Amino acid sequence: MIRIGIFGYGNLGKGVECAIMQNKDMELVAVFTRRDPSTVKILTQGVSVCHADNVLDFKDKIDVMILCGGSATDLPKQTPYLAKHFCVVDSFDTHAKIPEHFANVDASAKEGGNIGMISVGWDPGMFSLNRALGSSILVDGCDYTFWGKGVSQGHSDAIRRVEGVLDGKQYTVPVKEALEAVRSGANPQLSTRQKHTRECYVVASEGADRAKIEKTIKEMPNYFSDYDTTVNFISQEELNEKHSGIPHGGFVIRSGKTGKNLENTHIIEYSLRLDSNPEFTASVLVAYARATYRMHKEGFVGAKTVLDVAPAYLSSLSNEELRKTLL
Amino acid sequence: MIRIGIFGYGNLGKGVECAIMQNKDMELVAVFTRRDPSTVKILTQGVSVCHADNVLDFKDKIDVMILCGGSATDLPKQTPYLAKHFCVVDSFDTHAKIPEHFANVDASAKEGGNIGMISVGWDPGMFSLNRALGSSILVDGCDYTFWGKGVSQGHSDAIRRVEGVLDGKQYTVPVKEALEAVRSGANPQLSTRQKHTRECYVVASEGADRAKIEKTIKEMPNYFSDYDTTVNFISQEELNEKHSGIPHGGFVIRSGKTGKNLENTHIIEYSLRLDSNPEFTASVLVAYARATYRMHKEGFVGAKTVLDVAPAYLSSLSNEELRKTLL
Repeated sequence: MIRIGIFGYGNLGKGVECAIMQNKDMELVAVFTRRDPSTVKILTQGVSVCHADNVLDFKDKIDVMILCGGSATDLPKQTPYLAKHFCVVDSFDTHAKIPEHFANVDASAKEGGNIGMISVGWDPGMFSLNRALGSSILVDGCDYTFWGKGVSQGHSDAIRRVEGVLDGKQYTVPVKEALEAVRSGANPQLSTRQKHTRECYVVASEGADRAKIEKTIKEMPNYFSDYDTTVNFISQEELNEKHSGIPHGGFVIRSGKTGKNLENTHIIEYSLRLDSNPEFTASVLVAYARATYRMHKEGFVGAKTVLDVAPAYLSSLSNEELRKTLL
Repeated sequence: MIRIGIFGYGNLGKGVECAIMQNKDMELVAVFTRRDPSTVKILTQGVSVCHADNVLDFKDKIDVMILCGGSATDLPKQTPYLAKHFCVVDSFDTHAKIPEHFANVDASAKEGGNIGMISVGWDPGMFSLNRALGSSILVDGCDYTFWGKGVSQGHSDAIRRVEGVLDGKQYTVPVKEALEAVRSGANPQLSTRQKHTRECYVVASEGADRAKIEKTIKEMPNYFSDYDTTVNFISQEELNEKHSGIPHGGFVIRSGKTGKNLENTHIIEYSLRLDSNPEFTASVLVAYARATYRMHKEGFVGAKTVLDVAPAYLSSLSNEELRKTLL
């Protein structure tokens, strides 16, 4: 049994807990929280909730710690710190800061003789894997990543900060025509506006200036001004009823050419349609926790990403079974 | 520069030659053929065509030998033999015999201190990778593989063996309704007939009994009797004009559930649309030749498959560049 710890118990941590239940070679040892542990109820019977400050008490009781904090402020500190003491897996997703995070985790993981598996999930994660595979196979080609249809937490938060807004949800939606153009093999150059639209569902406070709210959202720099944005005012009841899920997904498409005169076109497409973004991310984290455990047993140490993991490490099947049944 | 040899110069060998030209860290050293080398013209200037019997003369001049023979009779002998003397990559695709082939290649590759990378291509190959990833992430779920639309060489050969048939081409076509049912997350049980149809284009000899040809094809066991098959009689000119390509492709879909009560459904879909089946397979072979070269330098020996290769080995980019640009 692979002994797992969960560090941080929000949506992602809960998803990891559920995913562990689906994997028979794993057991949850403890959940760590910065809240008062007595206030945190978890799903797994007989597993203790501990304060984050006491995590080092579990040094020899946990094989892999799965970090479920946020990328903005939690993981940049937590992953390097915990990698000194545990093999860790995180879902650090601030793309621009990955090299820096990798270096920090690499140093402390090597100091502790552990593996620090970072940026695991779907983007970064499965999408990165597919970008790497696609560009390695079809050398002369173009990469396209589309996100959605799905809820962007950051954009939803931005809406909710607008004056007069009580609640709101934002969906990122890939533009169908852009997807079709990419699939045709035409290798189009696509602007930000051409690739995605943004759909907002907003609950306004009574008497709020809806026209002003709509204008403020649509003109918000970085978040909305570069996109075709639609703003729909709905009731709190409708928002709760129709928009309470956290679906997401997207597409990674590699379009490339081969042949003596590059006369043949090939399209590789990888897509995800996810009912629950955090639960899918959690499922990826748990598979990479298995890989981390196995690779550590084989002597690997230091920071790793999905690009460093041979796929066979992820499966609960043996190499022989994989070759016989899946290859 | 990675020095590559090509063993066998049919469609696949030619595709490998073209792919090597697209990869700036590789050079083609020699092409080996069982034919009279003076009768074999290749595309790359200044590269020699040698008889297969003289391949051992190149023992220290080639880093990776890419085997481009057939799976029925060539590779079961060639790969184990050559793996004693070279790092090799093959596209062995008889799924049922992979464990046996793996064992044979493993023994001889270890004897020679080489890597024998087998069953590289898209199925087995990229499709296997996606089946392994999908089932590792979404543990409670189902796998579906669809092939096509594309030309099946084996079925085309079967058509051409029918009495009264001068020429013919067979397309395997996935059934749209089956694909949609899988994408819906319903995890349907699908029979062979429900998943694919077979489209045949047949050139009959003058005065041949077309009704009999059609009946013979449609009732052919193993090849056609389990499928809804359509037979279209066309002229040799039309066959040459419209059906001379070797397109292929397909879909690997994993549909699975997560959550406390498995209430959330996720769909992972990987698809290929290929103008040229052999050229795409060749491009995969060449990327795995790079991985073979690097892994051998790091001390790996023995038989390997795509499941044993960390994705970073495939790319011409450094790990740092990959993390910075692709992750």
